[in-house]
Parts: sequence; structure tokens; C-alpha cells
Amino acid sequence: MSQYHPVRFVDVRLEGEFWKERLDTVLARTIPSQHKKLTEYGYLNSLKLPNPPPPLRFPRHANGFTVQVFWDSDIGKWIEAAAYALSHKRDADIEAKIEAIVDDFEKAQAPDGYLNCWYLGREPEKRWSNMRDNHELYNAGHMLEGAIAYYETTGRRRWLEVMERYVEHIRQNFGTAPGQKRGYCGHQEIELALIKLYHLTKEKKHLELAAYFINERGNPNPHYFDVEREEREKKGWEWQRYVQGTYEYSQSHKPVREQDKVVGHAVRAMYMYTAMADLAVELNDAGLKAACETLWKDVMETKMYVTAGLGPSAHNEGFTFDFDLPNQTAYAETCASVALIFWAQRMLHLDLDGKYADVLETALFNGALSGLSRDGEHYFYMNPLESNGTPTRWDWHTCPCCTMNVSRLVASVGGYFVSTAPDGIAFHLYGGISSKLDVGGTEVAVREVSNYPWSGDIAIEIDPAVEKAFEVKLRIPGWCKGATAKVNGEAVRLTPVNGYASISRSWKRGDKISLELPMPVERVYANPHVVMDVGRVALTRGPLVYCLEEADNPGGTVQRFKLPRQSEIAVKQSNLFDGIIQLTAGGQAVDEAEFKPLYRNAPPREAPATLTALPYYLWANRGQGSMVVWIPEA
Amino acid sequence: MSQYHPVRFVDVRLEGEFWKERLDTVLARTIPSQHKKLTEYGYLNSLKLPNPPPPLRFPRHANGFTVQVFWDSDIGKWIEAAAYALSHKRDADIEAKIEAIVDDFEKAQAPDGYLNCWYLGREPEKRWSNMRDNHELYNAGHMLEGAIAYYETTGRRRWLEVMERYVEHIRQNFGTAPGQKRGYCGHQEIELALIKLYHLTKEKKHLELAAYFINERGNPNPHYFDVEREEREKKGWEWQRYVQGTYEYSQSHKPVREQDKVVGHAVRAMYMYTAMADLAVELNDAGLKAACETLWKDVMETKMYVTAGLGPSAHNEGFTFDFDLPNQTAYAETCASVALIFWAQRMLHLDLDGKYADVLETALFNGALSGLSRDGEHYFYMNPLESNGTPTRWDWHTCPCCTMNVSRLVASVGGYFVSTAPDGIAFHLYGGISSKLDVGGTEVAVREVSNYPWSGDIAIEIDPAVEKAFEVKLRIPGWCKGATAKVNGEAVRLTPVNGYASISRSWKRGDKISLELPMPVERVYANPHVVMDVGRVALTRGPLVYCLEEADNPGGTVQRFKLPRQSEIAVKQSNLFDGIIQLTAGGQAVDEAEFKPLYRNAPPREAPATLTALPYYLWANRGQGSMVVWIPEA
Repeated sequence: MSQYHPVRFVDVRLEGEFWKERLDTVLARTIPSQHKKLTEYGYLNSLKLPNPPPPLRFPRHANGFTVQVFWDSDIGKWIEAAAYALSHKRDADIEAKIEAIVDDFEKAQAPDGYLNCWYLGREPEKRWSNMRDNHELYNAGHMLEGAIAYYETTGRRRWLEVMERYVEHIRQNFGTAPGQKRGYCGHQEIELALIKLYHLTKEKKHLELAAYFINERGNPNPHYFDVEREEREKKGWEWQRYVQGTYEYSQSHKPVREQDKVVGHAVRAMYMYTAMADLAVELNDAGLKAACETLWKDVMETKMYVTAGLGPSAHNEGFTFDFDLPNQTAYAETCASVALIFWAQRMLHLDLDGKYADVLETALFNGALSGLSRDGEHYFYMNPLESNGTPTRWDWHTCPCCTMNVSRLVASVGGYFVSTAPDGIAFHLYGGISSKLDVGGTEVAVREVSNYPWSGDIAIEIDPAVEKAFEVKLRIPGWCKGATAKVNGEAVRLTPVNGYASISRSWKRGDKISLELPMPVERVYANPHVVMDVGRVALTRGPLVYCLEEADNPGGTVQRFKLPRQSEIAVKQSNLFDGIIQLTAGGQAVDEAEFKPLYRNAPPREAPATLTALPYYLWANRGQGSMVVWIPEA
Repeated sequence: MSQYHPVRFVDVRLEGEFWKERLDTVLARTIPSQHKKLTEYGYLNSLKLPNPPPPLRFPRHANGFTVQVFWDSDIGKWIEAAAYALSHKRDADIEAKIEAIVDDFEKAQAPDGYLNCWYLGREPEKRWSNMRDNHELYNAGHMLEGAIAYYETTGRRRWLEVMERYVEHIRQNFGTAPGQKRGYCGHQEIELALIKLYHLTKEKKHLELAAYFINERGNPNPHYFDVEREEREKKGWEWQRYVQGTYEYSQSHKPVREQDKVVGHAVRAMYMYTAMADLAVELNDAGLKAACETLWKDVMETKMYVTAGLGPSAHNEGFTFDFDLPNQTAYAETCASVALIFWAQRMLHLDLDGKYADVLETALFNGALSGLSRDGEHYFYMNPLESNGTPTRWDWHTCPCCTMNVSRLVASVGGYFVSTAPDGIAFHLYGGISSKLDVGGTEVAVREVSNYPWSGDIAIEIDPAVEKAFEVKLRIPGWCKGATAKVNGEAVRLTPVNGYASISRSWKRGDKISLELPMPVERVYANPHVVMDVGRVALTRGPLVYCLEEADNPGGTVQRFKLPRQSEIAVKQSNLFDGIIQLTAGGQAVDEAEFKPLYRNAPPREAPATLTALPYYLWANRGQGSMVVWIPEA
């Protein structure tokens, strides 16, 4: 296992242009507008117990389920996002809003610690009776993550203590002892939250409870979801149909250590793997580590979009079969890419291997970031890789999980840049940060300055409080060939091992590293088993996947273009969105106007054309229009 | 309006190899096996009233609906198919089976004529209370079509009389008079059946009832489906959720004459347009004719697969937006292509224009015929244009509408070949038929001999009882260039007008026409707005669309192939399936085995390869494997 540990998000300052813009937008626009939506849509009102709850805002689905059962989680996640934001800039108004929510939760909490406003308000007798569908522990997990983040930012303990009481209640009710329920949640999340609580408090019992939920999951004979269903039936309670054919949906079809294929609901899967990797680190559990590695290999080799989007199918919000990666109908939920970042980060701290950081970075700059609009108030739940122009970003969603997932990601992105070990510092991401790190007891101020991801020219300052020997590990991204570096102006030989180049020396104040990551445009081809992409090419530059969008290529749908294999692709500094890099290339365009019938024997006429590409994460910020990532090669 | 009228299926004898094989299979295998399935799955037992009905075989969907409400229709449609089959070869066993069903229906019929075994058996008080969802008139329509076919074949009136009593009951209950329900069926079908009854009986009242249903449909203020829903609510009856967002699903979003876009459930749409075209003919209704023409144009220019499959989406079993024709996820229900044949035939008799016959023929040989396996006992409900190899043909279906739709089509296909006018005969299809026709009071025996669709060499004998002047119209298919003909060995000049070449002369016994329809392989390209097919080509020969299937192209998925635009395509006589024409061409194949990661910068390796194509309708008769209609062009 790796000796490296992540640096807390509160200890990293974002200074680079790219992330400062996103962060400022999230602070100024996203967090406040999300609070407004939570108010407008009745979420915050749903906490005001014991008032009789208002009528359902979202009627029960035909299967008996309503999305309102997980409203607590959205509120918890908003607090988490807002708390991360506060770490960058305190804001009395936001803090007052969080405190008001905590007031409500505190008042709502039952004397025994139970705290789920759906059940407390509507059907208190039914608590813990439908773990399969009703998300109680999922809600608890997000509330707990919110409480931890709020405490870490502000030092305020009240919300954390409410949640610690709730966790205690959960601990008493779930487990293998007589009288306890041997259950676990249909939607994983509590597990990773409990591990965060363990990291904060160092109390082993939280780690053990997380391990219980992971170890119990999927045990057959009997399956817990069958046990509780039978109990519901005995009580004559309202029937709630299980919408999924199998327990693969919730990765509870078999014990987690036996799972070797990535299946089911993508977000559930990623949250679970995150907790499994966490536990593998904390418990030094080789079996869990091996399972994680097998599952990682499966998803990487057969199931991930080039944008690091996950889950092709809307049907189960998740995985189907190997190499099934349709572009226009890709589900690729924003939450799934965010959760992949969590998992990749955990894997990276199991083994400091750049392959994990590469995926983390791809998901961050593409599949996850695409979920948030430039204006910070519109979202994608689904992130298709091709569009006929009909999808638009939403300002809210029936199930707004993605909205707060992307805001909490951006507001905490600093936490993914750098890790420390007793004898070293590892830089995973670049883009302008500063931090004061602890390296084996010595404070080391670091500053990384760059215009990443637009440029691969990176300057790093290493300022230890006292001169000290340690290694600085620089991630050399998988997409990068020919990286070079200098220390204090003198070239050093880079010999990356597992994606990281080490510079070991005695560091003293004022030491400077300059790192150059050449960032040419690359063509990417998909495995031919991805039949949707045969004969097609995607363009990347650095960590960014590019797409053709109609806004840059007016005159018809962008599906009209072909890009010959031999075309030169030019890099173009653009003024769009405060300055980005676009790509242009000569290609062919089919003449859409001239082709009148639906079918004919003469091929479409083609004419030379210039193709202009834009980073994928920025699409759908200039009105509706078609978009394509995988461009046919002429 | 055209002077041409179709010749009844009972009056046309199928003699050509192609259709005789299909017909023999349907007679020997399909019809008996379908009866067996209707027995096994409890359909026939559901007619045995007033016994208490057995438990639901298919539980209610979460929305309250069960497919068992339309079991009567499946039985009616089986009788129709069986009756068509009997017209080719009487069969005492099949007739006894039909009589036994008629016994049950006759016993089940209520004293007032009502006859729906779902309602009579389970919830008699609720009849006619949910026209939106529960298919009562749809069932009646299929039962009526079955009764008419059975009478036409056998002359037996009992089943027809049962149905005439039921129609009388329907007439009394529906209409604009006080006390009548101003309703119509959520699933169109009764309309076209009533017009058939009118054709049989010449009783205007049946035509008028059909016209009432068509004219009433979609009238707002109030919408009938809202009226009846409110009535159900007043009675406190079990809630049944409407699964569709809008009434476009059932083409009742506005009055039919105002409809100008093809929307909603594809089969409902096609059945409705069929009835609209029928009524336009019978009532000389220019408004209905214009609406039909507008809708025809819409579907032909923006919504039809090259196989004449209709309806891309499983969500509504129907239409989405213009040019949305995904290949792998195509729904393209067999029933929809069968129903398109009905509509095309009606349009053809509104205006004798080959464009309608072209579509009729494409649907027949491709989108419809693909629904029935070579062995006659397996089916496709969905007819995708690309497959990764997972779909398989089913031996039955939860909703077996397609199974009997394709059997009744094959058993009655003779009815589509030829039409007569007071002064002429029009040949629409070729493939070997004989018939005795009435041309202005003169009996004219005709025989058309060919190996169509494999060959375009067609010999036609015209034998009038007495020498007589009339025109023979020969359809020159839209795909055919350079057709030539001789009469009694002497070349005649063909000048096709609207797809038909006329030969007007005085015909006498022994006159022979020979028609040559050159049938080269053609490349077909889709309109570039069909973004799924940009850069792809389909192959056709005559009326047949071809596909690449893995069985002929082993070694990987057929999506690995590219077909250069300049490749010669060879026609190859094959022994498969008792002799068919396959196509072969030189192309490239991507090396699937060599490409290991999911993505990489180097393009896949390609090697020269031979592509072998098979008629689309024959795919999936040799086990599972991938298939593709639209082949990437190199």
C-alpha cells in the first residue's frame, strides 16, 4: 500500500485561472441558486417537523416509490458543497442558511437519534423497513458528509454531533448481534461517509460499521432484501414493487469480494468501490484490494466512455454489457463520473499509480465538469457523447443528485491535487494551487503555477521551513510523451515509474521546479468492439476531450463532418469563455441541404470544410445545437 | 380517385417458389403452433365463461394495466390468419379449432350483444369505462376481421353473425346522440374492420360508424379520455395511470384532419391512416385524402427505416422526431410494417401510384417478413437494423400481436398482387400468381410466372374468356431502371406513368407479356439528417434490403467491416434457405483481436476482407450473431 495520503481540501488554495473561474462561479452562483431551488421545491420545508407534511410534490411512481424519500440527502449534499465553498471564502449569509437547516434537523431528530425527515414526517412506524428502495442510510451518509465538511470548514460541532447521535442509533440497529437488523442500504453511500467520520474522529467503531455494511452486502441465504420484503408483507404494508429484475442493480447480487464484473446502477457501484478501496487501505485488506483491482480493470477495459462517463443505459442508470457505449443515448450520469473520481482517488492512495490519476483527471475535466453549465446554474444529469441538439441543460431536476455532486466536487477540487508521505510530496493534478504541507514533521510551502489544462508549462515552488531531503513526485500524465523538467534552471532526467517522476534531493527555500508537459493534439480510437465508434476518431489535447458543436460549426448538424486521417489539426487560442483552446482542421462536410429524399442511390455530396472543436465540458452553453465527440474519419 | 380495386385474397392463387415456401410454412407450422401457444398460455381458456376466470397470467403492470385485456384480439387475429390459410388449403382440424372458439365466443356473448371476455369474465360492471387503455374496440375490430375472413373462406356465417350483433351493440352505445358515449378506442383498429364489414355487406351503417370513430377522434373540449377518466374517478374505481405523457401516443391529440405529423404509437397510427384512406375512397372525402397524403409524405421523408420499419423508440412503441432512426435500438415493430402495408395498399387504391406500391413491397419483403423465422415458429417483435448478437427470435411474446400479424399477412399476401378496374388490370407485385379476374364483366384468367424477388424476368399470360380491349398496367418498381417488355414476343415501348407502364390493346386467349426488370445491386444512402447513417451505405437488390450477418462472416462482429465505395459487388447464387441470392464484395476489416485497450492513439489495424451479405428478412435464422444493414464506407 502507498505511503501517500491526500491533503485536506481546506488546506489547498486554488489560484489558477481555470479552477478559480469554476470555483468563483460555484460560490457566487451555484451554491446560492441551489439553496433557492431547495426552498422553492419544498425540500427545506420538508424538514419542519412535526408539522403535518405537505402533499407530495412528486407523486409516487407507479411502483410505489417517490423521489422525495431522498430529499434529506440533497440537503446534506448542499451543506457539504456550501461548506467546501466556505473554506475558500466565509459567507455569513450561507452560514446562516446552513445553521437554519441544522436547527430543523436538530429539532426533527427523534430521542433515540433517528433522523430521517421523510419517515419521521410521514410514516414513522415504517423506519428501516425498506432498505432496498428507500435510501435511509444513503440519506444518512450524505448528511454525515455534509456535517463533516461543515465542521472541517467552520469548526462548528452542532451538526456533526446531531449526526454522531444518528450514527450511534444506526450502529445499535444494524449488525450481526441478536436483535439487530442484518441489513444494508440499497444505495451505497453511508459506508464512505462512515470512513470519513473515522478519519475525522479516529474512532475505530465507525470504520467497523462501514466494514460491516460492506461485508454483509449481498450475502445470500437469505438475502436481506427478501427478508425485509417478507416482513413488510406480513405486516400488510403497502406493496412496493422492485423495479429492477435482479440485485445486480444495487451490487448486492453476491458478496462484494466475489464481484468481478461492474454491474448495475453506476453511482451505487462507484460509491461502493470507493468505500471498498478505503477499507482496503485502512484495514490493509488484500482481498478487498484485489476485488477493487479486478473491478477497476473491468470498467477500464470494457465500460468507460472516453470522457470517463459511466453507465450507458437510462433503464438502470447504469451498466449493460461489455463495450456497449452508445453515444447519443449515453446516460453517463454526472454523479457517476464524480463518484469515479472518488474511487480513483482511493485507488491512487492504495497504490500511487498514475493510471488512477489519469482516470481521475479525465473524469474531472470531462464527464463530471460537463454536468455544470458555464453560468453555474444549469446542469446535465446525462452526459451523452453525441446530440441532435434536443437536450438542454436543466435548472433543476426531479432527482437533483447531480447538481450538488458537481458543486461539491468543484468546491473541494483542491483536495485532489497533492498528497504527502512521511518522506515526500506527490503532485497529481496541475492548474495553480498553493498549500502548506507537512512532510515528515517539516512544514513545506508549495505553490504550483500554470495555465493548465490549456498549457503544460508548470512552475512549482518548494519552500520547506528548513532544508530537508525528501522526494517530490510529479505525475506525468498518461497522455503525455516527452515530459521534461528543470530544478532551479538545471535539467533533470525524468524516469517516470507508474506515471510519477521522482526528484529526490535536499530541498531548501526558493527551490523551483519547472515541468514541461508537451500537449499536442491527439487522435483517439476506440476498441473495435465498441461498434458505435468504428471508423470514428475523437480528439484530445492534454486531459481535455474535444467535441464538435453546432455553435462553432453553423450550417447544419455537426454529424455532417468527416475528418480525414491525414488532416492537420491546428491549435487555436480562442476568446470564447474567457479564453480557451479550440482545435481546427480541414475535413469534408456532407451537403445536408442538397439531399432531399430520405434515401437515394447517389451518395451525399461532400465539400471541403473546416471543423472547429471545443472542449467537451463546455458544450451546450450557447443554446441548443448538435454535438459529436466521435467524428467519422474520411 | 383511382378506378382500381384490389382482388380478394381468396381469388388469388400463389404459385411462385418464394411465396409458396412462406405460405406452406405458415400453413404447416405457424398456424398450428400459434393455436398451441394460445392454448398453453391460457388465451383459449379465458373465453370459457361464466367460469370464474383463472388468476392473471401476466400480472398487472405497475400502472394498473395488463396485456390480458387484449387477448380477445389475438384470438381474433389467429382466426383471421387461419381463415386466410384455409383459403389455400382446407383443413378439418383447423376448422374444428376455429369452430370451438366460436362456440366459446357465442356462449360468452351477453344478451345485449356485448362480447369482450376480459370484462365479461372479470369486471362486467366496468365495460366501456376505459377506452383510453383497455382496447375493447380494438379487440372487437380484430374479432370482426377474423369473422369476415372466416366467412369469406368457408361461407360459414355463425361467427360473423355473432360479431354483427356485437357491432350492433357498439353502434347503439357510441355516437353523438343523447345517451351515447362520444368515445373511441385508444388503439385504432375497429375503424378499418368496420369498413371491411361494409365491403362485405354493403351496409352503409358500418361505414358510418367507422366514419364516426374517425371524425370524433381527438376532438377537444372536452377530450373523451378526460371525460371517462373523471367518470371513473367519481365511481372510485381503481386508478389506472396513463403511461403516456400526451394523447399523441394514440393520435387523439387533435382531430385527424388537422394532423400533419406522424406521431405516437406506430401501429395505432398506421391502423388509423388505413381507415382514413379507406374512408377517403368510400366517401370521396378530399379532406381525409389530403390528410393522408400529408401524413404519408411526413413518414416517407423523415421517419421510415430503409427496411420500411417504423417507430424507432421502445418507449412509446413509436415515433420520436424527424430523422431519428437509430439502428441498434430500432423498435420497428413487425406489426407496424404490416400495418404500413395496409395503409400503402389503401393509398394505392386512392391513386394508382407506384410510390405506394414501392413502399408496400419494401415493407413486405423486409420490415414485415423479417418478423417470421424460417421455421415459421419464431418471431421478432422488434426489427433492429443492427445487432450485437444478443437479440433472438422468440417462440411467443407477452404481447403476441406481431406473431399473428405476420401470419395473417403471409396467408393473405395474394390479395396485394393485382387490382382490377372496369377497363383494366394492374399488376403491383410479382412472384407467381394466378387468378380469374373480372374486367368490365369479362372473365380474364391471368397467370404471372417468375422467380421474383430473385429474378426480374417475369412472364404474364392474359387469357380473356372473349377477346376484349383493356389496359394492362405493369408496375415498374421505383428501384428499377431500364425495364423492357414484349407482348407475344414483340417489343413494346414502356412509358411508365406514376410507376405503372400501360399496355392497351385488344387481348385474346394465349396473349403473353414478358417483362424484364433489371435487378442490379444498388447502393443506398440515407439523408445526412439521419446522423446514424452518415458515412454508411446499405445494399439492395430488387425489393430486398441486404445485411451482413455474422453467420456468413465469421471471425468477429460484422461491425468490423468497411465497404469501399469503388468495390464491385458480386451477385452469388447460394444454396442457403433452398436457394437465395447473396452478395459479396471486397472490403476492409478492422482487426478486433489486435486492439487490446479500450482506447488508444493508434488506429485499429485493417486488412482486406470479403463481405458476404444476405437478405435482411432472413437474418437470425442460424443462431445468434451480430448483424448490420448500414455498412461503413471506407
